[in-house]
Amino acid sequence: MRLSAEDLAAGYALACQTLVVGDAVVTVPPQEKIERRLVTDRTAAKVTLPFTYDPERHQPMRLLPVRIDPPSLADQTDDWARLKRHLAANYGVFHLEAGLGMLRRLSTTLRGADWTVSAVVEMDTWNHPEGPPRLVDLLPGEQRGPLWGAALDIGTTTVSMYLVDLVSGEVATRVAEYNAQIRRGEDIISRIIYASKNNGLAELQSLVVGTINELVERAARRVGIQPSHIYKMTVAGNSTMMHLLLGLPPESIRLEPFVTTINHPPPVRAAELGIAIHPEATVDCLPGVSSYVGADIAAGVLGSQMCDFSGLTLFLDVGTNGEMVLGDCDWLISCACSAGPAFEGAGVLHGMRATVGAIEEVWINSDTYEPTYRVIPDPKLEAQGKRTPPRGICGSGLISLLAELFITGLIDKAGNLCFDLGCRRVRQGEHGPEYVVAWADETEHGRDIVFTKVDIDNLIRAKAAIYAGFEVLARSVGTDLELLDRVLIGGSFGQYINVEKGIQLGLLPDLAWDKFHFLGNTALRGALLTLLNREYRQNIAQMAHRITYLELSADNSFYEAFTSALFLPHTDLARFPSVAEVLAQHKKNNTQCQ
Amino acid sequence: MRLSAEDLAAGYALACQTLVVGDAVVTVPPQEKIERRLVTDRTAAKVTLPFTYDPERHQPMRLLPVRIDPPSLADQTDDWARLKRHLAANYGVFHLEAGLGMLRRLSTTLRGADWTVSAVVEMDTWNHPEGPPRLVDLLPGEQRGPLWGAALDIGTTTVSMYLVDLVSGEVATRVAEYNAQIRRGEDIISRIIYASKNNGLAELQSLVVGTINELVERAARRVGIQPSHIYKMTVAGNSTMMHLLLGLPPESIRLEPFVTTINHPPPVRAAELGIAIHPEATVDCLPGVSSYVGADIAAGVLGSQMCDFSGLTLFLDVGTNGEMVLGDCDWLISCACSAGPAFEGAGVLHGMRATVGAIEEVWINSDTYEPTYRVIPDPKLEAQGKRTPPRGICGSGLISLLAELFITGLIDKAGNLCFDLGCRRVRQGEHGPEYVVAWADETEHGRDIVFTKVDIDNLIRAKAAIYAGFEVLARSVGTDLELLDRVLIGGSFGQYINVEKGIQLGLLPDLAWDKFHFLGNTALRGALLTLLNREYRQNIAQMAHRITYLELSADNSFYEAFTSALFLPHTDLARFPSVAEVLAQHKKNNTQCQ
Repeated sequence: MRLSAEDLAAGYALACQTLVVGDAVVTVPPQEKIERRLVTDRTAAKVTLPFTYDPERHQPMRLLPVRIDPPSLADQTDDWARLKRHLAANYGVFHLEAGLGMLRRLSTTLRGADWTVSAVVEMDTWNHPEGPPRLVDLLPGEQRGPLWGAALDIGTTTVSMYLVDLVSGEVATRVAEYNAQIRRGEDIISRIIYASKNNGLAELQSLVVGTINELVERAARRVGIQPSHIYKMTVAGNSTMMHLLLGLPPESIRLEPFVTTINHPPPVRAAELGIAIHPEATVDCLPGVSSYVGADIAAGVLGSQMCDFSGLTLFLDVGTNGEMVLGDCDWLISCACSAGPAFEGAGVLHGMRATVGAIEEVWINSDTYEPTYRVIPDPKLEAQGKRTPPRGICGSGLISLLAELFITGLIDKAGNLCFDLGCRRVRQGEHGPEYVVAWADETEHGRDIVFTKVDIDNLIRAKAAIYAGFEVLARSVGTDLELLDRVLIGGSFGQYINVEKGIQLGLLPDLAWDKFHFLGNTALRGALLTLLNREYRQNIAQMAHRITYLELSADNSFYEAFTSALFLPHTDLARFPSVAEVLAQHKKNNTQCQ
Repeated sequence: MRLSAEDLAAGYALACQTLVVGDAVVTVPPQEKIERRLVTDRTAAKVTLPFTYDPERHQPMRLLPVRIDPPSLADQTDDWARLKRHLAANYGVFHLEAGLGMLRRLSTTLRGADWTVSAVVEMDTWNHPEGPPRLVDLLPGEQRGPLWGAALDIGTTTVSMYLVDLVSGEVATRVAEYNAQIRRGEDIISRIIYASKNNGLAELQSLVVGTINELVERAARRVGIQPSHIYKMTVAGNSTMMHLLLGLPPESIRLEPFVTTINHPPPVRAAELGIAIHPEATVDCLPGVSSYVGADIAAGVLGSQMCDFSGLTLFLDVGTNGEMVLGDCDWLISCACSAGPAFEGAGVLHGMRATVGAIEEVWINSDTYEPTYRVIPDPKLEAQGKRTPPRGICGSGLISLLAELFITGLIDKAGNLCFDLGCRRVRQGEHGPEYVVAWADETEHGRDIVFTKVDIDNLIRAKAAIYAGFEVLARSVGTDLELLDRVLIGGSFGQYINVEKGIQLGLLPDLAWDKFHFLGNTALRGALLTLLNREYRQNIAQMAHRITYLELSADNSFYEAFTSALFLPHTDLARFPSVAEVLAQHKKNNTQCQ
């Protein structure tokens, strides 16, 4: 059913349906390998902050140089009390504490540095805003900076990190890498299931820590420091990623009534997690709201500066789940809808990730019904002046393809392909009706790239789930999507959505295009702001607590809204006046399918 | 010089002076082996407390049973917030915290116990008297007790422990064992030196932890529990023992100006030290005053209840160092004098530890000069109705022997043996003048047990150092030893001192005998009181901070006082009127040596 006669003839088989009865060599076809350029892994452009950074006021992690009077028979004060006395006198640091690791190095460090040292002191944490301060490290000599910290976003697919000087507040570099957990499951649910198997949790924990350590190593090398010079790490990520990072069993996230072990974990030490920065560095996980509205969303709301503007705002992060927050900062309400992985290219016959060879945008000529497409280029081929042949279609390509098929009348509002237009690309394929996007002779694998009725239905269900989420959120607070002042779209996927097409297929509400803002990785930005500013750190804690979470599976109106959205753009075309206008225009120009 | 012709003939050699040039078999003679019965390792008599124990008022470690409403779609509160909510509502426990280990077990424990659990909560610690409370463990079901804790005294020689129910406040058992560090040095100084060698600190740390784990295992077996059921351990010990337990380098204790890394270490987790009780149990090390007045002394002062009485009190703990505290609880002043190990039987030709075969008390007939002695019996021989032959002389035996020799006139006030009395036991031996305590045919090894002039001088120096300490302490606060209302003697050695003899040789001040109180292991008792009562724990912290420490090596008057005390009982006989009277009595009855 999923494989073509061609594939079968070529010896392809579905691994999940095949019984291996003897020795077998399994070849993973190249299109399944991850080859996407990680466009985010390069030195960051200067990151601007919404405040003028003042480490004394904003930064809990401080570097305090101090010259200490050595002990004598007349003053036999112990090393620890002596250091505390000087830090109190010079900086007003009282009630200093230290862990055993630090105390074990204390005597040797003080004497080795001849009693002139620089204390790395964490003045407070979000859960102890009044301190007590903690001595994290003691460096020889009088040091003024830099002092390193890291802001991290752990995505299900990608882990991104900023390396930041906590003295100047400047981002020194940005790095990103695929989350090594991918090899144990592409999405959250498969990871949760894997975690519940024998030792799976420990393995997933160590995989993501491996990725983090790789990023730390790479960033440190780039900047010319040791990873052990990093004293703080602030982490955003969805609730499942946070559980896996901390080694908390995530099962209850998947099972009704869908609760986490903890939404706002306490700060932990890097050594407790195996993160290879300074062993006593603080790893501060940002707060989530619920199982499916995690710290990535809370950090995203913060990073988007949603609250810095008045007016009704919708914040949206599209991935496997559509997670969204609606509000105006007097109130915030959130939900997550299980959109499925269609927008990530999964569950679609020729769907693929946004890597080399993916069709990322499609235009269809409304007269000839012939498509034009843009492929994510292979730098090697480009260098030789050659075009990159397509291998499949990624999420943004699917959105524009679906919208174009609809607007040109090649599919109707229910997603049925129109055979009456005389378009040779619309045909009956092995999986039912399909549209041929690229002929075999254009493609990398020498087979047609098609978009089937099954694919169309999957995508419509995905967009309907997300739109229904908007709908239910708005309705639950008695407002209307038309009244939105802004739509903020976070997440790397969001960056590639074409607003016009998104509106045309009914994924995005029909608003003026200038109301849409693509913000990139807002979760990472949120992590950065909270790493640098204790006021932002307090804000996110309060905000995550304040965001109301609407559980859609317990909400009857969701199913109704979903069903209404299972059409292009929607059962109620009046909600999409701009689309109605375009359709009317096309109707006038072209023969209609129906 | 140290070996007799007899020994040499028998093939004895000093290991420290012998060059091994080929294969060699080294035989450790049995008298060097430790065979002392640890009289303290048996089920404790009921320990009485100076307060009526009320866990709710006194005990920071609590057992709180709670039935929790399970989560539902209508209440998706995360597990942690849910537990906190119930503990706040039922017990007024706010701002609860937990470590990563506890959070990792949370979800499974709650569901496995069907949401009825008992929380082990540490409400506060000495350094955080207002909390926040910490969830240490979560047990399934509604449990009311017992809840186990341990009070520990880590001596240089012996480690002693009480296993205590923190709900009833009752001591379930007492265990004791030699400190396994002994194999790396008998006294503090040799351990510090060993610690500074390659990996020596880690080895000593692991040796004492091994001893603690053995005690924990033994006590737990006796009471029928698992070691992991122990949630708190309060530890007394001298500053070096504390450094070695925590893995802090102790070098600076030994080197001028003699300072510790930390006098009052913060509470740590059992797992950080490798102590095999509950990994998140608190190990609370009591505070010391200085390098040589450690937590054993602070705990001793507390355990002796020195402050519960008015009047001038001297608290004394005799070991290798004589450590003492003088005060009346409005003020406390302390010092430590390096008495050397003579009172422990070291540096004395036939000296030995207080084990089987040791002469522990001696009486000398003032007419015949013949001694009578009591030997620490060998239970096996006793069972056969046989007397245990002596092998050497232990500390208490040395004290009574020296006093008897002096009172009977066999030695003069400078410690010179008197050859004019016609006593056949006084003779010129290989090491100079000596007194024969036991003839070869009475002894276990078939050689005479003698007490030499060299031994006498060593003992006089040791007692002089201790008495000079008393003297300097009293003088420094402008008081006089005659004005003492009480002398409290702690430590296991103290239990065996005969007050009369101690006064006669000028080790103890000349006071009415009923002013002396032998309290046994006051350090262990202090650990018990602070384990059970947070008020006592605060008291000891304040007290250790308040005790003035007098550094004798920086005090000129000490050397003067020491020199004056290098006579029996003292240069100034007027300080010892009772001894003067006894001497006058003997002068009347006997021929005097001088």
